[in-house]
Amino acid sequence: MKTVVGFGDYMLRLNPEGYLKFFQADNFVINYTGAEGNVLTSLSYMGVPTQLVTKLPKNDIAECAVGNLKRFGVGVEHIAFGGDRIGLFYAEKGASQRPSKIVYDRKYSSFSTCEAEDFDWDKIFDGAGYFHFTGITPALGGNLPEICLEACKKAKSKGILISCDLNYRKNLWTREQAKETMEKLLEYVDVLIANEEDAADVLDIHATDTDIISGKLSREGYIEVAQKISKKYNIGRVAITLRKSISASDNDWSALLYQDGTPYFSKEYHIHIVDRVGGGDSFGAGLIYAIANGLSPQDTIEFAAAASCLKQTIELDVNLSKPADIFALVGGDGSGRVQR
Amino acid sequence: MKTVVGFGDYMLRLNPEGYLKFFQADNFVINYTGAEGNVLTSLSYMGVPTQLVTKLPKNDIAECAVGNLKRFGVGVEHIAFGGDRIGLFYAEKGASQRPSKIVYDRKYSSFSTCEAEDFDWDKIFDGAGYFHFTGITPALGGNLPEICLEACKKAKSKGILISCDLNYRKNLWTREQAKETMEKLLEYVDVLIANEEDAADVLDIHATDTDIISGKLSREGYIEVAQKISKKYNIGRVAITLRKSISASDNDWSALLYQDGTPYFSKEYHIHIVDRVGGGDSFGAGLIYAIANGLSPQDTIEFAAAASCLKQTIELDVNLSKPADIFALVGGDGSGRVQR
Amino acid sequence: MKTVVGFGDYMLRLNPEGYLKFFQADNFVINYTGAEGNVLTSLSYMGVPTQLVTKLPKNDIAECAVGNLKRFGVGVEHIAFGGDRIGLFYAEKGASQRPSKIVYDRKYSSFSTCEAEDFDWDKIFDGAGYFHFTGITPALGGNLPEICLEACKKAKSKGILISCDLNYRKNLWTREQAKETMEKLLEYVDVLIANEEDAADVLDIHATDTDIISGKLSREGYIEVAQKISKKYNIGRVAITLRKSISASDNDWSALLYQDGTPYFSKEYHIHIVDRVGGGDSFGAGLIYAIANGLSPQDTIEFAAAASCLKQTIELDVNLSKPADIFALVGGDGSGRVQR
Amino acid sequence: MKTVVGFGDYMLRLNPEGYLKFFQADNFVINYTGAEGNVLTSLSYMGVPTQLVTKLPKNDIAECAVGNLKRFGVGVEHIAFGGDRIGLFYAEKGASQRPSKIVYDRKYSSFSTCEAEDFDWDKIFDGAGYFHFTGITPALGGNLPEICLEACKKAKSKGILISCDLNYRKNLWTREQAKETMEKLLEYVDVLIANEEDAADVLDIHATDTDIISGKLSREGYIEVAQKISKKYNIGRVAITLRKSISASDNDWSALLYQDGTPYFSKEYHIHIVDRVGGGDSFGAGLIYAIANGLSPQDTIEFAAAASCLKQTIELDVNLSKPADIFALVGGDGSGRVQR
Amino acid sequence: MKTVVGFGDYMLRLNPEGYLKFFQADNFVINYTGAEGNVLTSLSYMGVPTQLVTKLPKNDIAECAVGNLKRFGVGVEHIAFGGDRIGLFYAEKGASQRPSKIVYDRKYSSFSTCEAEDFDWDKIFDGAGYFHFTGITPALGGNLPEICLEACKKAKSKGILISCDLNYRKNLWTREQAKETMEKLLEYVDVLIANEEDAADVLDIHATDTDIISGKLSREGYIEVAQKISKKYNIGRVAITLRKSISASDNDWSALLYQDGTPYFSKEYHIHIVDRVGGGDSFGAGLIYAIANGLSPQDTIEFAAAASCLKQTIELDVNLSKPADIFALVGGDGSGRVQR
Amino acid sequence: MKTVVGFGDYMLRLNPEGYLKFFQADNFVINYTGAEGNVLTSLSYMGVPTQLVTKLPKNDIAECAVGNLKRFGVGVEHIAFGGDRIGLFYAEKGASQRPSKIVYDRKYSSFSTCEAEDFDWDKIFDGAGYFHFTGITPALGGNLPEICLEACKKAKSKGILISCDLNYRKNLWTREQAKETMEKLLEYVDVLIANEEDAADVLDIHATDTDIISGKLSREGYIEVAQKISKKYNIGRVAITLRKSISASDNDWSALLYQDGTPYFSKEYHIHIVDRVGGGDSFGAGLIYAIANGLSPQDTIEFAAAASCLKQTIELDVNLSKPADIFALVGGDGSGRVQR
Repeated sequence: MKTVVGFGDYMLRLNPEGYLKFFQADNFVINYTGAEGNVLTSLSYMGVPTQLVTKLPKNDIAECAVGNLKRFGVGVEHIAFGGDRIGLFYAEKGASQRPSKIVYDRKYSSFSTCEAEDFDWDKIFDGAGYFHFTGITPALGGNLPEICLEACKKAKSKGILISCDLNYRKNLWTREQAKETMEKLLEYVDVLIANEEDAADVLDIHATDTDIISGKLSREGYIEVAQKISKKYNIGRVAITLRKSISASDNDWSALLYQDGTPYFSKEYHIHIVDRVGGGDSFGAGLIYAIANGLSPQDTIEFAAAASCLKQTIELDVNLSKPADIFALVGGDGSGRVQR
Repeated sequence: MKTVVGFGDYMLRLNPEGYLKFFQADNFVINYTGAEGNVLTSLSYMGVPTQLVTKLPKNDIAECAVGNLKRFGVGVEHIAFGGDRIGLFYAEKGASQRPSKIVYDRKYSSFSTCEAEDFDWDKIFDGAGYFHFTGITPALGGNLPEICLEACKKAKSKGILISCDLNYRKNLWTREQAKETMEKLLEYVDVLIANEEDAADVLDIHATDTDIISGKLSREGYIEVAQKISKKYNIGRVAITLRKSISASDNDWSALLYQDGTPYFSKEYHIHIVDRVGGGDSFGAGLIYAIANGLSPQDTIEFAAAASCLKQTIELDVNLSKPADIFALVGGDGSGRVQR
Repeated sequence: MKTVVGFGDYMLRLNPEGYLKFFQADNFVINYTGAEGNVLTSLSYMGVPTQLVTKLPKNDIAECAVGNLKRFGVGVEHIAFGGDRIGLFYAEKGASQRPSKIVYDRKYSSFSTCEAEDFDWDKIFDGAGYFHFTGITPALGGNLPEICLEACKKAKSKGILISCDLNYRKNLWTREQAKETMEKLLEYVDVLIANEEDAADVLDIHATDTDIISGKLSREGYIEVAQKISKKYNIGRVAITLRKSISASDNDWSALLYQDGTPYFSKEYHIHIVDRVGGGDSFGAGLIYAIANGLSPQDTIEFAAAASCLKQTIELDVNLSKPADIFALVGGDGSGRVQR
Repeated sequence: MKTVVGFGDYMLRLNPEGYLKFFQADNFVINYTGAEGNVLTSLSYMGVPTQLVTKLPKNDIAECAVGNLKRFGVGVEHIAFGGDRIGLFYAEKGASQRPSKIVYDRKYSSFSTCEAEDFDWDKIFDGAGYFHFTGITPALGGNLPEICLEACKKAKSKGILISCDLNYRKNLWTREQAKETMEKLLEYVDVLIANEEDAADVLDIHATDTDIISGKLSREGYIEVAQKISKKYNIGRVAITLRKSISASDNDWSALLYQDGTPYFSKEYHIHIVDRVGGGDSFGAGLIYAIANGLSPQDTIEFAAAASCLKQTIELDVNLSKPADIFALVGGDGSGRVQR
Repeated sequence: MKTVVGFGDYMLRLNPEGYLKFFQADNFVINYTGAEGNVLTSLSYMGVPTQLVTKLPKNDIAECAVGNLKRFGVGVEHIAFGGDRIGLFYAEKGASQRPSKIVYDRKYSSFSTCEAEDFDWDKIFDGAGYFHFTGITPALGGNLPEICLEACKKAKSKGILISCDLNYRKNLWTREQAKETMEKLLEYVDVLIANEEDAADVLDIHATDTDIISGKLSREGYIEVAQKISKKYNIGRVAITLRKSISASDNDWSALLYQDGTPYFSKEYHIHIVDRVGGGDSFGAGLIYAIANGLSPQDTIEFAAAASCLKQTIELDVNLSKPADIFALVGGDGSGRVQR
Repeated sequence: MKTVVGFGDYMLRLNPEGYLKFFQADNFVINYTGAEGNVLTSLSYMGVPTQLVTKLPKNDIAECAVGNLKRFGVGVEHIAFGGDRIGLFYAEKGASQRPSKIVYDRKYSSFSTCEAEDFDWDKIFDGAGYFHFTGITPALGGNLPEICLEACKKAKSKGILISCDLNYRKNLWTREQAKETMEKLLEYVDVLIANEEDAADVLDIHATDTDIISGKLSREGYIEVAQKISKKYNIGRVAITLRKSISASDNDWSALLYQDGTPYFSKEYHIHIVDRVGGGDSFGAGLIYAIANGLSPQDTIEFAAAASCLKQTIELDVNLSKPADIFALVGGDGSGRVQR
């Protein structure tokens, strides 16, 4: 498989142990994370060559972040160094009716203040096959929308497959800002990933008959949304994750791939959640893996859904599942029997 | 809101980590707790001024207990110091069919051997609006039944609203002792809290048509019990929590408020339990908060039930929920989605 | 109750904390375990005299293993010392769709290289009433099949009740090897324990109408299998555990005892799993306890099923349940209410 | 004792456990700290009323910081809320020849971007007796030098004793900036604290005969420096801490107070370091406590030196020593015998 | 070696991790301890048969205490069960100039309220060779002075060697009470252990020329004290431990045995302290081991001193040293080189 | 700098936390280590390209070991996979008079059973500049002495500098075996590292006037030994580390480099030990770094000694020191002052 290049911020995640709330915590568990970084670490763990393009400060904490990437095998040769700080956020895990809570402190990060000269896209994309970014990257502002556009153009010119996860974050930009910026970038995107809210929030695309009270779309509604996106932005593959949050502890999870005019739904999994953070990123990684390995559309969405189901049974942000584990779940073994 | 005064023992709680049994534990997690203290720390966390009246020994462990109260903002100016020891108990958390287990070592605590002179109720109630105690306080014996009665009389004379949680503990006193003592105190009580067993155990009040086999009351049965209590003891508000223990891991939880002759039931929550200890105390805190803030009876019982639902998704004894969190659950968002 | 003698390897179990995967672990929780050792520690915790016959190296880690046995009260007077190493395995706990995973490193253990002279069966069985071993012991190879046979003959000659748990492990030997060896040993066995797969794997005994697709037997199918085993090998009591793995987090659990031509089914428990490892061993311990205490066949299978249900709500391998806890669950209290 | 008011940033400190380096850490121990906050928490622990004036963001992490202050009893009524973030730093503890290392991430903190309107000094100083700040506060830039000056003027006008610890931090400002700003503030200072380097770095004051090679001053050199500072800035009390760093694990520690033209040296302690961070702050707290309690100059410097000696035998930043503990060490009991 | 019987309270010890103070602790490390119990666990670890005679409540915490004794191999057959509670204490470890601190909560323990009928000394001493108790046992009051006397008489009548460690605890009784009670018991004692203060505190025996200022005895002074004790109470062996507390982190440690009119001094060890609690108990265990194994007086005191030196390099209360480890240190290898 | 290739076993190290003994441990800290691997991880951390040649089993634990190497940046492309198990050892840290203790379980490791075909030396050494191995590699037996010889020949033929650390382990082979094998390999060695005992144990080379009683060589003695080795085996650089073990907590540490007939001694460091394991490996890494960077002989030995001094102030096996940290210590700053 050719190298997958990701472009995004890479951060320190600090969370209390288990289900402790911030007010009860005496320690923070250290983890390094980022939407694009998580896609790459998951892919690397599956044996795929990857490169993360980001910017980090020159200090010991950033060295730990880089060490984490290297441990998974993610290439770090194109990381720029400089700026003030590594972005970070504090995450407290919810349970049952209590939601998880995230306190962001990512403003002023080295990545958010990066400059065009920090990255040599010609060299970065040399020999690469895939480019992945999420809506968070341009949302960080500064020069990032322009740099992101430059990267897309360069990737397109080299015949690289471009995937994008809309990943709308309302605390980073407004819907209007998101729509304006993302529409420029979508021109270059081959594979678009969205969850049930992103399409409406960012692209203002809605199903005709949405049940306005519950906000839940029917299967037909999701197909309609995917179809509209595909058509309007001329995107070959549109993938939508479908999460039913019964509670913070129990979710139903499935996904839809709309490809070449045909919708493909995955199985639905009832997940007893261990850690749902990173679920979307593992879906992206599964999707890229499946596409790159030439799976059929139905197999592709099954693989991506199963991959992200397994992620949510694993602590922290990275999907520590091998292709064999994922294929086993696709094949039907979700019984959780002991593997000896 | 005016100050809420609580009167009760404050103890050290020691529990093994996670689901470990005592025989497996190498460490105890340290926590400080007490039925009335928990009501106050929950209220303080919601921004309400509070004062805990108790007695603790003069040593470093009691200093830690006081530090915990101060951290939440509970007033500690009226705590008496002296006596032999801080009461303590060991708690092991159950799961599924395995019940939680508590080993008490609270005998001879400084509070249980306090004297009338330890507390200056006139000064304590100066400027206060609410007085809360539970049946555990008089159950500790010694001078406590008399001191508790003195406090009630003084509070009543100052127009302070008095709330009491029956909280029957069979290892502290007999039903007969409890009935005799509590009936004297109930004369002064404005808001009475009970769970499904307390009314029968302490007050010998039963529903006419209880299903004797299962011991479970129907909704009508609960209303009847509340009505009888309200009438017999002339108590304006009677609140009953309704717990259905499916297992140590899964409970259904709701509550009833009987006020001015009308019953108000809350929604029922299916809770995946993180820690059920302190559930009743958080209900009391929610009830006092709602009453003090002038919520309608229906809103009051919804607020108290949602507050105590959230508590049970939180480790240890205190409900670390803000009013906004509770109102959100009352408003219907129990989906546990991540708050960014 | 007379002494229960067990014969098997005793190992070091290393597992990451909580639900962490190996790749995330910075620490291993230390535990000592073995199929027969777990039966004995469970029995000792219930107050039964026991003796573990095994072989361990002369080093500090083996001393810790012995200390663990002694802590429970298991007799260690007949343990042989020598050889290269204590066997060990690494265990990672699954959740929801993710299976638990075990990495074995038990080859070359002192026990697997033991010799006949290491054990003086005449002395070992002096005053004993019960002898328990599992299929793992002969599966370890070397001199073990012969030593095991010798032990069975000696036990039989002394009128000791012999129980055996088939416990087939495909990574230790083939089905053919297992069948050949186990059939020789079954000649001496009075109580045989098997799970749903062992009978087919080791003894090649199948129900007539098994649903081949799902692999699940009906109640009738289990009865038929037990009956065939009982008849073919002339075994008075055949016990089968029935696990329905809904996921790694949720299992249904019950058991069947086929005794004197009559099948007895236990209640079925829906278990929210804390740790399922050791479930089978705790079933064996419960069975031996019940038989030794003269319970009726129905009470026996209820006791064994309830014992092993409780084990699965407890961390690690040993069932830290007292007979009173187990009888309480048999009696119907699975509500998990707090025991004060 | 009258209230001690402190003015400075209050931060999150994250450090690996024990002697682990950043690259080895999987967890960070959480602590809240700041030069002025540490002085106040130490004083509060000794029973002195205090108030911390600072600015923090409106989020859960800042709530934890405030909870920490409240636990010690530090007044938090004058804390302003707003701005982007709580400052933080990462600290790794050294040992023997390996130095401790601090990675700062305090830029853009809410405090560093505070405005004059955030603080009502008239109200803050109402009833106060002491005002303490360090050179770090103006070093943070923005409006802080002016606000600090305003606070000094107001304090002076109310007859409040002003103490200042030079605390030069070369990564926050240059020597020139420090000198210019601090000289304006020193006009109002009654008690100045400095370590051996601050006087040279910030005030450009040197002893005549410094051994240029070793950089170590003789006792006479220190007296000369103190005398010059006292004279030039007309400061009644100048206190200098004298640390001899033998290694990260072993330090000799003593102090000098120059008061009314007379030098007073404390005893020297050979400290086996547990955590040296916060040593200077605990010295400041000891000094203020001693002055406020009317100790003689010799007793004052002995108390401050002993207090800060004890701090360095305690983990983290706050001196958890009671006056009785400190007086015991002053009185000569440094033998570390068990207190029963 | 014949069985060593010990008689004393066995308690729960709770201490913060590492050097944390109580006010910083979120967890307590669990340990079970007692002066006589520690002597026995140390002896059991060296392979000596032992029996602890004590009384504990019937609860899960006491079961853990008993499990700890069994793990070491200490006999628990003569432990009585009943009473209210297990005694406990909280211990915070000092460092450098900061002393360790113990907060006792042992009042009302089951042992302190035991009765003569709880123990059948005739049966207890059957086959025993040694009886050990400390001054703490009678100091606990109630029936203990009488029961202790009864035990001594019975032991003496059976020719059992009786050893006693004075172990004066000023918070349990006065010097006068101690002297009166202990003198009655010393009549039966063959081996007396004391530290430098006990002789003066309990027996009012002093050296002629003590340096009153420093309180330190010369070697001659110690010999004189031992001689006086030996003569006055007709005790064949008097052993005194000599601790020089340089700080809580560094101690010099040696010991004197006065036997048959001749003094024998051990080597002196400079110890970098890991945990000094239990140092005296490990000295007692070493002394009993050496005497029972017929070592010469010089070898006996060297063995006991080396044993207790090693204990102080080990966490918690028990000396986890084998005779070979101790003989190696006696033989001169204190270099701490790695043992592979 | 050119790539440094190392050849040796890579193992799992399990140790109790802090100073706990095995018998007290409930957890093992996980670490991956090996004499050659430690040299490479230290070098990688200093920015040097490296490759570890070893063999590991195909399982999840080996994957963690490889992940650890990758995190540091060590090349893993030439690791062979197969065989039964990863070698492991248990390590308990000593203190003061108590020695550290290691229990090995490395027999039957995949590496110890490797075959010549597992490694393609031609490819491995392509572009490499340095080859490092220790005496442990041939000591593991099997095909390793021959494979090691083959590697040396190939390296020599490519002009690669070969360094070897004698590292005699008496539990792996006898002195005679070691001498016979090592002498064949020394023929190819350019840089030999030994500690004070290795020369005598392996090569039977002694100083003329050794003080036989103390076993300590004088400076002249060390020079004589180095000279003899250099001459006899025609080795250009002989480096000897000089450890004075005062206790497990305090060591003096220095080193000698004998090059081209001239002895160069480093400074001596008094180290307060955090973890001495890996001290020799970090010395090797420092030596290779210094030689490769063209430092003078005196600067080389100072760099290597300072590097290994710093390692011993760091937990676990790898020297997490940057060249700048090491040069700072060489330059004289061993005061351990805080680096801000």
